[in-house]
Amino acid sequence: MDAREQWRRFDRWLCRVPELDITLDVSRMPLDDSFVRCMAPAMTRAFDEMAALEAGAIANRDENRMVGHYWLRAPDLAPSAEIARVIRASIVAVQKFAEDVHAGRVRPPGAPRFTQLLCVGIGGSALGPMFVADALGHPSRDQLAPHFLDNTDPDGIARLLAGLNGRLGETLCIVTSKSGGTPETRNSMLLVEAAYREAGLEFSRHAVAITMPGSAMDKHAEQQKWLARFEMFDWVGGRTSVTSVVGLLPAALQGLDIAAMLEGAKLCDAATRVSDPMKNPASLMALAWHAATDGRGARDMVVLPYKDRLLLLGRYLQQLIMESLGKRLDRDGKTVEQGLTVYGNKGSTDQHAYVQQLRDGVANFFVTFVRVLDGGDDALEVQPGATSGDFLHGFLLGTREALSESGRASMMLTLPRVDGRSLGALIALFERAVGLYASLLNINAYDQPGVEAGKKAAASVLALQRRLLATLNSSPQSVEELAAKLDPSAGAGAIETIYLLLEHLAARGLARRASGDTPESVRYSLSGIRVE
Amino acid sequence: MDAREQWRRFDRWLCRVPELDITLDVSRMPLDDSFVRCMAPAMTRAFDEMAALEAGAIANRDENRMVGHYWLRAPDLAPSAEIARVIRASIVAVQKFAEDVHAGRVRPPGAPRFTQLLCVGIGGSALGPMFVADALGHPSRDQLAPHFLDNTDPDGIARLLAGLNGRLGETLCIVTSKSGGTPETRNSMLLVEAAYREAGLEFSRHAVAITMPGSAMDKHAEQQKWLARFEMFDWVGGRTSVTSVVGLLPAALQGLDIAAMLEGAKLCDAATRVSDPMKNPASLMALAWHAATDGRGARDMVVLPYKDRLLLLGRYLQQLIMESLGKRLDRDGKTVEQGLTVYGNKGSTDQHAYVQQLRDGVANFFVTFVRVLDGGDDALEVQPGATSGDFLHGFLLGTREALSESGRASMMLTLPRVDGRSLGALIALFERAVGLYASLLNINAYDQPGVEAGKKAAASVLALQRRLLATLNSSPQSVEELAAKLDPSAGAGAIETIYLLLEHLAARGLARRASGDTPESVRYSLSGIRVE
Repeated sequence: MDAREQWRRFDRWLCRVPELDITLDVSRMPLDDSFVRCMAPAMTRAFDEMAALEAGAIANRDENRMVGHYWLRAPDLAPSAEIARVIRASIVAVQKFAEDVHAGRVRPPGAPRFTQLLCVGIGGSALGPMFVADALGHPSRDQLAPHFLDNTDPDGIARLLAGLNGRLGETLCIVTSKSGGTPETRNSMLLVEAAYREAGLEFSRHAVAITMPGSAMDKHAEQQKWLARFEMFDWVGGRTSVTSVVGLLPAALQGLDIAAMLEGAKLCDAATRVSDPMKNPASLMALAWHAATDGRGARDMVVLPYKDRLLLLGRYLQQLIMESLGKRLDRDGKTVEQGLTVYGNKGSTDQHAYVQQLRDGVANFFVTFVRVLDGGDDALEVQPGATSGDFLHGFLLGTREALSESGRASMMLTLPRVDGRSLGALIALFERAVGLYASLLNINAYDQPGVEAGKKAAASVLALQRRLLATLNSSPQSVEELAAKLDPSAGAGAIETIYLLLEHLAARGLARRASGDTPESVRYSLSGIRVE
Repeated sequence: MDAREQWRRFDRWLCRVPELDITLDVSRMPLDDSFVRCMAPAMTRAFDEMAALEAGAIANRDENRMVGHYWLRAPDLAPSAEIARVIRASIVAVQKFAEDVHAGRVRPPGAPRFTQLLCVGIGGSALGPMFVADALGHPSRDQLAPHFLDNTDPDGIARLLAGLNGRLGETLCIVTSKSGGTPETRNSMLLVEAAYREAGLEFSRHAVAITMPGSAMDKHAEQQKWLARFEMFDWVGGRTSVTSVVGLLPAALQGLDIAAMLEGAKLCDAATRVSDPMKNPASLMALAWHAATDGRGARDMVVLPYKDRLLLLGRYLQQLIMESLGKRLDRDGKTVEQGLTVYGNKGSTDQHAYVQQLRDGVANFFVTFVRVLDGGDDALEVQPGATSGDFLHGFLLGTREALSESGRASMMLTLPRVDGRSLGALIALFERAVGLYASLLNINAYDQPGVEAGKKAAASVLALQRRLLATLNSSPQSVEELAAKLDPSAGAGAIETIYLLLEHLAARGLARRASGDTPESVRYSLSGIRVE
């Protein structure tokens, strides 16, 4: 293709959303008219299914729930007046609580106001809020400085608490868990509670819950008289909860403009309801994904925002996309093993990491560039006629061109700037693209059976650990002897798991390696120093 | 396979490094005896090439340089007494400088001592140091608090400087650039310099250079009388520089145990010179990569350390592995488009993000689990008989088992704890595995032609931007008119690039959109408010 042909293709395929100043360029994706025509019936079905979803159809069949994240930014569209009311009330409540905290009307017992915000949650309760906090925050302007605990690593938790540097007394803690039963979140909460106690502070005077009414955590928070409890709606899934209280409360407390985020998302929702797939950036994106991956995840998506503030976009999209699309069965129960792998950090930084492979190596990907036009204050010329931001932009265009020369596909999303409005639009755009794409693949984007199975697998490992500890005694026993006594469930890795648990128990001082050094020869006994 | 067969396979394939307490389990990778036998001649060649490399052979042919990162932790093995001497001298110099800074003998003009460390660098000059800082640091024990600038985003730089919160006067700044010509690093340095100036501080009294003697940066630092200059050896590549001054100086200033890191790396180097591939974790890893990816990057490697401190391992390995292996040509000049895609953050966090897809979706990956036995202080029971660390470990074992049940391959590296020694060993292990694997593929692991090409592409975009600005005038012109005048190089994206540059110049206030809204119809003129 020569420059003029390429230019006409660029012009023709460019999708603009004037009300948001956003454009999506898919001219370098393997899309053509015949593909779009061929996909038209499937895309029409996808739009119909999306319309049904937005009207309140049950989409998450596993959990028999509606899927209503689009209502969060347009309560008028909610399927009932009651839902519209609770959405509006939740936004008012978030804003009022944030104002009260900022003004010191809600304050910790021992300090004039809260200055730090500790968010405890995992998955959808962490990735969206972290992404927003990093994209929009600024250390000199944030009302509260945000921190996140998103795991069950005791050392990681202790280190984060140490980093609060004695300011636990000024720290407001949000615990987010839909059911209250997510172990990582519950464990972090218990360790944080203990830290407050050790510092002579009353956790409940610092704590806020975001959970479903009546959940274990809700009851705990009520009993303990936490500062506040916010409702998580059963029709909002974790990975699409960033425009619900889950994302709005931390953002509002940090001092970010949540009204702008909601407005951006709402405008983008409207723009992605347009039924001409060429004029709708979400359907165009879904078609481009399909074309680039043969509709079966045959290529990875590399996310490359040229903007430090968007570093976490890749991690956010990993969850939104891979958890939504990574499914074994389609909606007819056929085994399909679907998905779309996502990774990436930021440009131009990643050009000095893995872009070498993208340019020259395995052709197993396409790139989604994110370009931001207004880069903020950028006056200093670092060489005659060029600023640091000119370089950033130049690296993006140079890499985009070089990838095309190597025959690698890419698309480019251009945002006017990184602010609440654009960020809300960005989130809504990918939410909609995922939903439409899942329809094209005939899979359910709104369940996560593998995550549920993972929780069960871990619980059975912990149960085995307890039984193993009870089976150890003062005489050294081999792994196979112990396995025979435990008669663990017949999984292929059952004996091995016992060995690995013994190593873990030895590291914790509860078991003792008595002799041997290979897995088959080693003998374990109960440690004398067991702490009850 | 039943549990006893699986257990015997586990025992037989387990590779132990007793002197480091590290084990590598490859029993769940698609490896068997016939594959190992079949690869034996190639592996013997790989060991021979590695021995030649360690003896000082020219491996980086592009740059006509030796590749000597293994000498950094065993100077006795260096190919000349002079190289051994400069390595030893560099370590002494790093330790002395760090002691002087910690004791306040080297101090800023306006404060009793440095408390903050700002590291400016990109690629190998950032990813290794960041990984080490995060893996080993602790806010209460760090001598200096580390911060990293690894891009040319003016907004990102400004935000990081704002986060120093008025402590620029206590901030020591290391600028790391081999040639001194890496634009991102040079730009960041200039913006940082300006920030010191604006704060009434003299940058040179806060600045340290790590660069090649005689480079542009070296001369600049000498002229400006920076606090110190450290030498980057021409035989150490960026992505294997973490055990050189590049990684050691920031680590030592932070107060980390660099002697332990070097010792761990040295011991691992010794263990990975063992020529029996089954007893050498690096060759076993390389064989496992080959088996899982058909020796052509057919599957991605997902890196899942169950440890918050190892969050950046995935990003570190992205560079080490993808930049080393992502090559178009093999050493005979044949087009091979090689590579091995790497991504991943940490467990169990990622179980709530993309592990849904790993369990159920596209079978396009294998997992490298990293397990840490001693998880630090972990006394609090979060449920009867189970600590937060027991959960972390249980999630790892549960997910490993579930992936096997879905037929997904995984390997598992077990470390005794995360300390300097283990971290040095981990780094050395992957460095060696990459080197051996590249030999198996007959590619050069030590060049990066695509990165060099990327720098040139960006420079030509910036040159085009300058010429475009000079071609704009007060009368509105279309993109095609401007393109005709500029007669840009004939690349397919040439006209498009001009359009994108015009959008960028308009956002900077230098160009003005006079009319039109589609790329073909838009007209641009020179903005009246151009700032000279």
